[in-house]
Amino acid sequence: MNERLAHQSQSAPLQRVSSPMSAAPSARAERLFATRAHSLKLAAPLSAEDQVVQANDDASPTKWHLAHTTWFFETFVLSKYLTGYKIFHPDFGFCFNSYYEGEGPRQPRAQRGLLTRPSSADVLAYRAHVDDALHRLLSPGLPISPALAELIELGIQHEQQHQELLLTDILALFSQSPLRPAYADTSAAPGRAPASARAPKPTWLAFAGGVQRIGHDGEGFAFDNETPRHDALLQPFRLARDLVTNAEWLAFIADGGYANSAHWLADGWAWVKRDGISAPLYYMERDGAWMEMGLGGVQPLDPSAPVAHISYFEADAFARWAGRRLPTEFEWEFAANFCDANTPDALLDLHGSRWQWTASAYLPYPGYRPPSGAVGEYNGKFMVSQMVLRGSSCITPEGHARSTYRNFFYPHQRWQFTGLRLADEAI
Amino acid sequence: MNERLAHQSQSAPLQRVSSPMSAAPSARAERLFATRAHSLKLAAPLSAEDQVVQANDDASPTKWHLAHTTWFFETFVLSKYLTGYKIFHPDFGFCFNSYYEGEGPRQPRAQRGLLTRPSSADVLAYRAHVDDALHRLLSPGLPISPALAELIELGIQHEQQHQELLLTDILALFSQSPLRPAYADTSAAPGRAPASARAPKPTWLAFAGGVQRIGHDGEGFAFDNETPRHDALLQPFRLARDLVTNAEWLAFIADGGYANSAHWLADGWAWVKRDGISAPLYYMERDGAWMEMGLGGVQPLDPSAPVAHISYFEADAFARWAGRRLPTEFEWEFAANFCDANTPDALLDLHGSRWQWTASAYLPYPGYRPPSGAVGEYNGKFMVSQMVLRGSSCITPEGHARSTYRNFFYPHQRWQFTGLRLADEAI
Amino acid sequence: MNERLAHQSQSAPLQRVSSPMSAAPSARAERLFATRAHSLKLAAPLSAEDQVVQANDDASPTKWHLAHTTWFFETFVLSKYLTGYKIFHPDFGFCFNSYYEGEGPRQPRAQRGLLTRPSSADVLAYRAHVDDALHRLLSPGLPISPALAELIELGIQHEQQHQELLLTDILALFSQSPLRPAYADTSAAPGRAPASARAPKPTWLAFAGGVQRIGHDGEGFAFDNETPRHDALLQPFRLARDLVTNAEWLAFIADGGYANSAHWLADGWAWVKRDGISAPLYYMERDGAWMEMGLGGVQPLDPSAPVAHISYFEADAFARWAGRRLPTEFEWEFAANFCDANTPDALLDLHGSRWQWTASAYLPYPGYRPPSGAVGEYNGKFMVSQMVLRGSSCITPEGHARSTYRNFFYPHQRWQFTGLRLADEAI
Amino acid sequence: MNERLAHQSQSAPLQRVSSPMSAAPSARAERLFATRAHSLKLAAPLSAEDQVVQANDDASPTKWHLAHTTWFFETFVLSKYLTGYKIFHPDFGFCFNSYYEGEGPRQPRAQRGLLTRPSSADVLAYRAHVDDALHRLLSPGLPISPALAELIELGIQHEQQHQELLLTDILALFSQSPLRPAYADTSAAPGRAPASARAPKPTWLAFAGGVQRIGHDGEGFAFDNETPRHDALLQPFRLARDLVTNAEWLAFIADGGYANSAHWLADGWAWVKRDGISAPLYYMERDGAWMEMGLGGVQPLDPSAPVAHISYFEADAFARWAGRRLPTEFEWEFAANFCDANTPDALLDLHGSRWQWTASAYLPYPGYRPPSGAVGEYNGKFMVSQMVLRGSSCITPEGHARSTYRNFFYPHQRWQFTGLRLADEAI
Repeated sequence: MNERLAHQSQSAPLQRVSSPMSAAPSARAERLFATRAHSLKLAAPLSAEDQVVQANDDASPTKWHLAHTTWFFETFVLSKYLTGYKIFHPDFGFCFNSYYEGEGPRQPRAQRGLLTRPSSADVLAYRAHVDDALHRLLSPGLPISPALAELIELGIQHEQQHQELLLTDILALFSQSPLRPAYADTSAAPGRAPASARAPKPTWLAFAGGVQRIGHDGEGFAFDNETPRHDALLQPFRLARDLVTNAEWLAFIADGGYANSAHWLADGWAWVKRDGISAPLYYMERDGAWMEMGLGGVQPLDPSAPVAHISYFEADAFARWAGRRLPTEFEWEFAANFCDANTPDALLDLHGSRWQWTASAYLPYPGYRPPSGAVGEYNGKFMVSQMVLRGSSCITPEGHARSTYRNFFYPHQRWQFTGLRLADEAI
Repeated sequence: MNERLAHQSQSAPLQRVSSPMSAAPSARAERLFATRAHSLKLAAPLSAEDQVVQANDDASPTKWHLAHTTWFFETFVLSKYLTGYKIFHPDFGFCFNSYYEGEGPRQPRAQRGLLTRPSSADVLAYRAHVDDALHRLLSPGLPISPALAELIELGIQHEQQHQELLLTDILALFSQSPLRPAYADTSAAPGRAPASARAPKPTWLAFAGGVQRIGHDGEGFAFDNETPRHDALLQPFRLARDLVTNAEWLAFIADGGYANSAHWLADGWAWVKRDGISAPLYYMERDGAWMEMGLGGVQPLDPSAPVAHISYFEADAFARWAGRRLPTEFEWEFAANFCDANTPDALLDLHGSRWQWTASAYLPYPGYRPPSGAVGEYNGKFMVSQMVLRGSSCITPEGHARSTYRNFFYPHQRWQFTGLRLADEAI
Repeated sequence: MNERLAHQSQSAPLQRVSSPMSAAPSARAERLFATRAHSLKLAAPLSAEDQVVQANDDASPTKWHLAHTTWFFETFVLSKYLTGYKIFHPDFGFCFNSYYEGEGPRQPRAQRGLLTRPSSADVLAYRAHVDDALHRLLSPGLPISPALAELIELGIQHEQQHQELLLTDILALFSQSPLRPAYADTSAAPGRAPASARAPKPTWLAFAGGVQRIGHDGEGFAFDNETPRHDALLQPFRLARDLVTNAEWLAFIADGGYANSAHWLADGWAWVKRDGISAPLYYMERDGAWMEMGLGGVQPLDPSAPVAHISYFEADAFARWAGRRLPTEFEWEFAANFCDANTPDALLDLHGSRWQWTASAYLPYPGYRPPSGAVGEYNGKFMVSQMVLRGSSCITPEGHARSTYRNFFYPHQRWQFTGLRLADEAI
Repeated sequence: MNERLAHQSQSAPLQRVSSPMSAAPSARAERLFATRAHSLKLAAPLSAEDQVVQANDDASPTKWHLAHTTWFFETFVLSKYLTGYKIFHPDFGFCFNSYYEGEGPRQPRAQRGLLTRPSSADVLAYRAHVDDALHRLLSPGLPISPALAELIELGIQHEQQHQELLLTDILALFSQSPLRPAYADTSAAPGRAPASARAPKPTWLAFAGGVQRIGHDGEGFAFDNETPRHDALLQPFRLARDLVTNAEWLAFIADGGYANSAHWLADGWAWVKRDGISAPLYYMERDGAWMEMGLGGVQPLDPSAPVAHISYFEADAFARWAGRRLPTEFEWEFAANFCDANTPDALLDLHGSRWQWTASAYLPYPGYRPPSGAVGEYNGKFMVSQMVLRGSSCITPEGHARSTYRNFFYPHQRWQFTGLRLADEAI
């Protein structure tokens, strides 16, 4: 997921979304502090050196993730809702603002890796300072307003997004090290998809289409880009039960898939040629065997696992090669909701395996307007030139996924755990 | 319009589209040769020097347009349908193939301007050679197959697209000359929108929405990307009667529109900053007065004329600044069809003035599959990262426009006659 | 040669250089108008299309060369010395100034190829207008001042430099055309070095070194960078009698010369890797045979001809591979002068074949100061990061070469007729 | 100084240079281990985070410097001279080879900052492992060969070069941090030139010129590029007693020095325009006052201190503006030697203040040939497109400077402590 903000849709009355917020403050606070603690746990296997370096312009250093999510609470929650809150350091706003023009100038994105100061220890102190203030703000027994409850929830979700980025960014860094270090023991490494025994042949599920409700219904948290809920018209369609596997991807490679322009969008073909693309991002060939770099280091490629780290261009080319297509995001959401309500497990790996590229451009839903102010400034501003992914991945934090979730990336990006599920017209 | 191919949708039986083709061969031939002659007429005011130079990587030289459209007939029509047809020159395929991977290697796009040879005279001889063969192929009295008729029609439409590009590309070239030459006398220059007297205040038309038929119905020619015809679901909406004018754009500029990040998509803001964008492409300030470079040279900016030569980023930013939005391509098509059938002139400048940016990404319609073979290789391959424009412009050849027409460009491009019409939700 | 200015050294009293200037005006005028006419003769085989296009950022269009050399006379001679002279066109200064900051803003160098206007005909009219004025200025019987005589001479030499560039630039253009056109019939094409019968083994000439006079002595014309004449100290050295041939270069290629970093300067190796360099610029392999593109089109490579179109990096790598080195510019000049005075033809191809890379950086001679004013603004300003070449080439205009002449290019440039002569220490 | 190798000239018999080597092994060993310890002392104020990040493509991380200098001893000394030496880690050669093609592939230069692994602790262990082996190799009482002595000396000198780079690279890093951290307390920070009381007017020293011996005489260590010693011919010249100061530089700025093309080399002017250069690298204006970033953090600019962190382009432009020129490297060396022998302190700041740009291109001395093998592979390979600097700087390690030392950088580089001393012709 990109770094972006979320906001309860302004068209949804607050009371409609206040149900999860109306849980005892201690429950919300528990989730908040569990989330905060989880970030530290994710960073724990990493040295201060690992945490300061930026793998590439798309990625951020671990330390920056830890500080930015903290800055978020300081800026949008504590500074506004905790009387007498004192800013931890006057320069941290500049250092750890990501892209909020409304919050002033900031460290250029490509130079986040130059921030050896403030130190990791400073950032930990910053986190402790902010957590302490959050504890005061959320003291049991103190009533909190719906607006504050909403911002707390937003901060939790925001931090969860950065937890996933923290892992993909450290993988991007380690993949460029000559030592190819493992983030974690192979057995325990996040990102390993279990090699389940599956039917060898593609299995398809058919859906009837029609006018369907799309978007978030207001029960529980959602980002603003999942709203407003609205009707969409779907043609009858089919979806593959399984995600495309590494074995299938190797067949695509063996068939010259990366060498035949007929499969590719023109922009994709130019990308393949310019960057010398010939396999998913972390595939590598060693002594004639296919390996894959992951959070557990370099391991033999698992043929039965879903392919990961492919771009939209690659997903689209594969689908064309296979004589299929990618689903639209509406087809995906409708099918996921349908199965969830009627036939669980009819579609496998909807969540927790690979983000699934869709054929839908990332655009606003009918009637969408971004919330006002800096906190809502920015989901809308990314709504051009990117494609939607649905589902979630093996490293998405627990409780973060839902069927209406819209993830989005540029068509060439592939350092996330991205895969695909094929779609086709109804027979 | 981009250089791209069209093809009757393969899902539409040929007889459905054969009605216009079933006109007497002489009628079709007349249109063909009129189109061919019109290209030469457009090139007539230009010297051989003007015709050989490439203004930038997006544009092509006039001579190249004249030759490429000819190569199209040679390659897809004469080589296949005229027995004994002899290729004019063995190297012209390399020189004048645009992007058809299926037709082999070609001159790199950015180096089309290096083709001082073949000469302009050679290209005229090439055109004569091919026209002569086309005359033989279409001799009165000779029956022609529906497939051939379709290809002839495609060649006509293709050449019309390049006629528009020829003019925008020469404007791009002349705009970079210190002499700022005029393509034509001011009074006769194409691209001048008449300054009609219009109501000073915005006038809005409301539409009811609902499930509507979108896409080409098979009567007459259409490009493949306008098909299949399908149902789309629209919310109630409103459209502005008029296109946004230069006067309105000057108000946007005066209000700091180009200096306020809040109006802009993130990619758009980065583009503004990187390229120092502060006005539409051909605006220029001289001694405190706004002028505009056009096909008639540099002229005082006409406040009542629709703004031209803006990018999608600018159109979107203007709409946001104005508190409105861009229409989707479906809203535009439905409204155009509705007005056409019921209230002509309720919406002004639907055609013949400025291409109108829509909020829709350029994506395939449900069920779309590109035709097979090189001729149909390529409309689909551009369906990523571009935005749809609807309508047509003041330099679109007569007979080329229709309500289902889908033009498309990248969000930063603006050397075409591009403008915008505002939309909004129903009150 | 680069576009650059020359000027009699300010340290040389004008009377010292006035001897050639004191020839009858008619003789100088004759040379002037012969030079002017020769430029047109060089352009004669080229169409207006050929003349307008810019092959790359280093090259200029033929038309631009014709106009720039004319602008030079207009700006530095006629505007100052011909009473009542009327500037031909107010925009031509902007169009055809090359790099004279002192003469105001100008068309960016990389956009000289966008100048389809003024037309070739306009440029011819410009030349006629200026030539006519020059005729008036140099009417027989009118006395001219030494300063004016010097400027006329400078204009002649300047135009001769551009005559050579005109040919190398058109070759650069034609080499990128799929048609590989010939500038002239093979037999008559300039640039063909005669395949003389030569001894198969390298022959060396030894020189004693010592303190020697270097630089121009003030007799006749010289560019300012050839002055002041000064003493230089040389160690004993040897020079190869012949230039390195294509046959020898093929041996370098066959021995893996382009694949072994040990032969290369670090910057040169980076250039080889980045640009995929594997042979001189216009070598090409066709069906297993080596060919070379030249002004006469594509011809079989002549093994006995001196290699051409190599960069300094290549010359240096070859010399290292051969266990030799390049001569310094002082060694070259001393040897050329010595042979000229004592043993003509002891060194072959000193002139009229290939410019010869030296081991000397292009730097000012001791005591050099550029002349004042725009005309002398710029020889000095190129004195960094370039290497000196000595001699002249097969396309250098007659009468333009001399032993003190300093040509200079960046170490990666090779579109001139550049070759090398080996040097070594004395045995 | 660049990362480059040195080697006793092969033309100098080893016994000529063995005098310093013939000191008791313990003396050499003492210097060696003192040098090794000094590197750790320089790194001591820096955190592991500070040490891992690469400031820009020209700079290297502190940790990399510590490891690379260690790799140097492992590769060129221990692996060859210590029987049974065991390589510390098989991947460290890839990680810490700088540019020795002869030693195999390596981490790309621009990606040295991605090496979070091996960790700082690993690198310290690496240093201890190598130091321990060096102790064994240099045990008192064991005889060592001249060749080994020479390599030990080379390793010391090499590490000293990297000590200076370590400091300039950390300054480059800290200068880009929003916190502008100080490497050391202001009072103790290296790089602070004492503000000595000096005569307000320029004082010049005249030198007679003539044929002079240039280059290293073989007594003590020298890099190969300082040899062979040879005769050079000098014209009479003058040198300024003092380096150009910040006060003088501010006068250049105030006079529009950065805005007037007349002062600049063409490449320099293009650099000024493209990069928006308007002051030395670490100058900054705050509230109308000039400050400078240094190893002690941001401090008020000291007008009497020599200007630092200027490029060759700037040095040359300043000299031209001042009506003077830069000295050649031969003038500098002759003057330094002369003063050293006759009138110490007649020229101030020859060493220990700022590297001084000269007018000399970095080229081989007559008869220079690089030593064979990887250790000598590379001094020669940088001999193109760079300019020579003489002297040494305020952060050059003690004992590293000498009058024949040739430092070199590209004309645009300025992150070293670079300044200038003016020269002129004799009156």
